[in-house]
Amino acid sequence: MKEVKIFSPGTVANVGCGFDVLGFCLDAIGDEMIIRKTPNKGVHITKIEGGYDLPFNVNENVAGVSALALYQDAQPDFGFEIEIYKNIKPGSGIGSSAASAAGSVFGINYLLGNPYANQELTTFAMKGEAIASKSEHADNIAPALFGGFTLVKSNQPLEVLQIPTPKELYAVIAHQKIEIKTSEARSILPKDILLSDAIVQWSNLGSLIHALHTNDYALIGRSLKDVVVEPHRSKLIPNYKALKNSALDANALGTSISGSGPSVFSLCKGESVALQVKNAQKQLLKSTQIPFEIYVSKINTQGIRILTQ
Amino acid sequence: MKEVKIFSPGTVANVGCGFDVLGFCLDAIGDEMIIRKTPNKGVHITKIEGGYDLPFNVNENVAGVSALALYQDAQPDFGFEIEIYKNIKPGSGIGSSAASAAGSVFGINYLLGNPYANQELTTFAMKGEAIASKSEHADNIAPALFGGFTLVKSNQPLEVLQIPTPKELYAVIAHQKIEIKTSEARSILPKDILLSDAIVQWSNLGSLIHALHTNDYALIGRSLKDVVVEPHRSKLIPNYKALKNSALDANALGTSISGSGPSVFSLCKGESVALQVKNAQKQLLKSTQIPFEIYVSKINTQGIRILTQ
Repeated sequence: MKEVKIFSPGTVANVGCGFDVLGFCLDAIGDEMIIRKTPNKGVHITKIEGGYDLPFNVNENVAGVSALALYQDAQPDFGFEIEIYKNIKPGSGIGSSAASAAGSVFGINYLLGNPYANQELTTFAMKGEAIASKSEHADNIAPALFGGFTLVKSNQPLEVLQIPTPKELYAVIAHQKIEIKTSEARSILPKDILLSDAIVQWSNLGSLIHALHTNDYALIGRSLKDVVVEPHRSKLIPNYKALKNSALDANALGTSISGSGPSVFSLCKGESVALQVKNAQKQLLKSTQIPFEIYVSKINTQGIRILTQ
Repeated sequence: MKEVKIFSPGTVANVGCGFDVLGFCLDAIGDEMIIRKTPNKGVHITKIEGGYDLPFNVNENVAGVSALALYQDAQPDFGFEIEIYKNIKPGSGIGSSAASAAGSVFGINYLLGNPYANQELTTFAMKGEAIASKSEHADNIAPALFGGFTLVKSNQPLEVLQIPTPKELYAVIAHQKIEIKTSEARSILPKDILLSDAIVQWSNLGSLIHALHTNDYALIGRSLKDVVVEPHRSKLIPNYKALKNSALDANALGTSISGSGPSVFSLCKGESVALQVKNAQKQLLKSTQIPFEIYVSKINTQGIRILTQ
């Protein structure tokens, strides 16, 4: 096997009450990547398509840095080249950098005969993610690699838990095409929070985990509350409150900020509700001057997948 | 049916990472209560045994206040008298007031033909709990009434979730007989906490809920961490660190403060490990001047139970 073409999906991190630890994997949007073995040693990025200004230098590109981390550990006597077909806009809040970072290590691992488990791949990919977001974190990478919902129990040592995905769960992603950098979105968060708010947040996260285990859709909705981060970050997102209200009016289970925004996600029971939510948000955003895209996606329980090999 | 005799169990609130929301129910220690119908209207406390100085005035006694809350809602044309045989020392940190508050409403509800569900009983019992701890909270009452592990998702409106209990789970309670009042233990907690600590706490609570659903004993242990409350409250508990270390050395899954202390709980896989933990802690406490009691208990998945009727 000389090359593999993969689909590396977008992901939603934070998921309302699970700031910095929870994430889930999308199906309707993602990058494509081709990873190819080369006789010469080393890792090279040979193609980047999609119209974004991303570096070809492997030490500056998230896919390159994560690939190198794995490559240096595996020390094969051949090399790899990477082609990136970028569909997820950088800075959109649905795991653009994680898709690149996770995709390259997934593809290289596959061509090496899968010597590394997902947890190890996550560790390598976090090195790439750190280039984009200034900190090593796994809340987008883990759902991209493991699929479904993941809880990053700890970063040091890395421990990723796979949480079950209720079958009828759909996500709607409303992406207004403005950029919010993760590093900026972090800097507006307070260092200290009220203990009373923290208690509300962890009771909601606990109940969300319980709801995912018990297929309790209504409880998923009641748990998708964020009293810690949303009050700050929602200010950076135009039309946030209106988008949320229109989704809830159209029977979304819950709505919150995807990652550090500007994308806004809603979870819905069933595809038809998800389409209603999409239509409601589309009507709303049409009346603004901001270009946008709205995706409806099943939760992707597989994660990155192979397209051709 | 004229009277019922019940066992109203002790409970462990907070459970390490679940401050203010999580609790579980004990089996080896609890109060007994007799609730009796009387032809005259009203609620009366007619007997309190156990050697503790508790008020007979129904408006001052936790069992009385919770009973009155239910009684005023039900408005039966007869009354009730309550006998309390107190085994759980008030201020011990294993839900002494909750056992009284929950026991009286459970007993009266039973004699009324069970018109109220557990969630409603919890609401009545919270009125009694408020007398003892200065705030209405359900983290001890809910496990006493529902049994097993409970997560209080919210207080207003009250929503209690029942989390599954892995079959081989045992608790060890080391109770040094000094008193720590809940109100005092609350006052030493900071109003603000670091966001970074809150994230650690909610990742642990999320993973504990997941571990209870998946019978993952080792993960239960890795999740029983408390970076928010333990650093403050453990200072009020003599020998805390030594008790914790001796439990962990004897293979407890995890150890933390029960409620607001001074009791210290450990969770263990299997009774024989629990007995080892008990012995290790007994050796340790024997060398101190503080009187103590150590209980080994299966997790009580039933909650309050009827002894005779």
